[in-house]
Amino acid sequence: MNKSINITTDTLFDLSAYLKEKRAILDDYLKKVIQELNPENELAKAIEHSLMAGGKRLRPILAMAAAQATGKDFRLALPAACSIEMIHTYSLIHDDLPAMDNDDLRRGIPTCHKAFSEATAILAGDALLTHAFTILTHNPRAMFDPCPNDEILFKLVAMISRAAGAHGMVEGQMMDMQATGFLDQHNQSKVNIDNCLAHLKKLHELKTGKMIVVSVESGALSAGADPDQIERLAKYAGKVGLAFQVADDILNVEGDPYVMGKAAGSDAMNNKMTFPALLGLEPSRTFARNLIQEALEPLNTFNEKDILPLKAIAGYIVDRKR
Amino acid sequence: MNKSINITTDTLFDLSAYLKEKRAILDDYLKKVIQELNPENELAKAIEHSLMAGGKRLRPILAMAAAQATGKDFRLALPAACSIEMIHTYSLIHDDLPAMDNDDLRRGIPTCHKAFSEATAILAGDALLTHAFTILTHNPRAMFDPCPNDEILFKLVAMISRAAGAHGMVEGQMMDMQATGFLDQHNQSKVNIDNCLAHLKKLHELKTGKMIVVSVESGALSAGADPDQIERLAKYAGKVGLAFQVADDILNVEGDPYVMGKAAGSDAMNNKMTFPALLGLEPSRTFARNLIQEALEPLNTFNEKDILPLKAIAGYIVDRKR
Repeated sequence: MNKSINITTDTLFDLSAYLKEKRAILDDYLKKVIQELNPENELAKAIEHSLMAGGKRLRPILAMAAAQATGKDFRLALPAACSIEMIHTYSLIHDDLPAMDNDDLRRGIPTCHKAFSEATAILAGDALLTHAFTILTHNPRAMFDPCPNDEILFKLVAMISRAAGAHGMVEGQMMDMQATGFLDQHNQSKVNIDNCLAHLKKLHELKTGKMIVVSVESGALSAGADPDQIERLAKYAGKVGLAFQVADDILNVEGDPYVMGKAAGSDAMNNKMTFPALLGLEPSRTFARNLIQEALEPLNTFNEKDILPLKAIAGYIVDRKR
Repeated sequence: MNKSINITTDTLFDLSAYLKEKRAILDDYLKKVIQELNPENELAKAIEHSLMAGGKRLRPILAMAAAQATGKDFRLALPAACSIEMIHTYSLIHDDLPAMDNDDLRRGIPTCHKAFSEATAILAGDALLTHAFTILTHNPRAMFDPCPNDEILFKLVAMISRAAGAHGMVEGQMMDMQATGFLDQHNQSKVNIDNCLAHLKKLHELKTGKMIVVSVESGALSAGADPDQIERLAKYAGKVGLAFQVADDILNVEGDPYVMGKAAGSDAMNNKMTFPALLGLEPSRTFARNLIQEALEPLNTFNEKDILPLKAIAGYIVDRKR
């Protein structure tokens, strides 16, 4: 599989080193967060299990890269970055529960309810979600230096909570639950493909898109970006977020389960509505690549050097193996 | 059962009318919150089912009464009051899940996962918790008038999220899960009662106490109370919160299931550690009454008329039938 759109080859930007460095910085902060949660107790152990399971850290890195795109210190994005990664992790813990997707493996290790218990996994998710707002507001300067001012932190709570809740991620997950078995319940030949595609785009816009967009917006806001910059970055993130999901669906069809950390083909087995199921595999690849090209257009007003990470990440989204 | 401590009989304060009036005001705001959540969809229906199930609204009324205790407009407490009631409701939805307390009835009607599905109940809880922080920060002045300033709202997010999370309510629920069957696992005669009592107090301080204390603190802060006033009110709430739990345990032993909306004796059946189990029934009653007397002492610096609701609520806590 060599479907790169080669966005990074015309530069000397080393994305792999960039991701590694930013991941390490984020992980240090997340370890500090866990350290403050009384790491001896079972709840903190369950939180650590899932939060430190080696995720891609895509959302927090997007937040840092968006801060950098405005020419400012990327570390200003760290409070938002940590908050968003904690919310992302809680959503994975709850999505994996038996009553939801019922997954035993996540990122190659047992899911939280498998490693601990269902009750502990529910509570670990609840605690992560709650604490995502605590770290933005309860003495944030003791942990983050530099740190955005309180006025910005207040706006971060508003935008992040809205993206995560009933107008965003949670509603998307609800749609996803209702969509599972959609093609099973309906006679597939009678289903209007355009309607399905619109439904699927809406689902992903809510389930993953809103949190990816808010990652970029909150990173930029943390660095003091102006409204035009934030709007352009949000457009970038909207396209990148959808491309990410299309790529995810493609990986589910053809990915290596050892690399992905979960079984390939599980979407098809669950009769889940996906882009490859609706469009076919090759048209899905083309769709993802076009989205990435569209994502880069709004960035043309930024300093070329400052947006190298965002451009490279966009390429990585459709080129990744997991 | 006539165990009133008669705190209200020496005044002309009509607690019943007060509770009814404040409940109606709160319910109107909660209906507005649901209205904004696209009430046609399944997630909003599940939220409405649990949020409007006729709870006592103790926490939000405490917030309003605390604002009033400082001589200010109680309506300043409404953003915090709504936020806290939403968090309380989410915690009930998740606590009722099969993996947790596995309850079929709550407030006399089917629990959220019984009326909808387990997945929907998990997501409804997640959405309520998330939205509790949205209403404090996302354009709050469009809903609340009067409304505290952004600086106060920011502090409310910090204090409410901290009380609700891994340093508060969620950790308390975790301890409660681990404590169920405690007396079963240990030979009861060998268990040190003092240790058990300390454990039980700690559990309740976290599981219900922190949210009751933050209700009063956030109501007072919303009204612009000074630190000494907030500290005194927090002491009141700490004692009242524990008394509330002792009263709950007593009701579980002897309450009428039709009034309570759940089966009496369910704690004993689950071999749960309770105050009546550790102290006996009559000493538990004395303990609750003493706590209420201690709760009122820190209020002696306030204007007598302004604290009538808080005094009456303290009496109601140990005198209620459900």
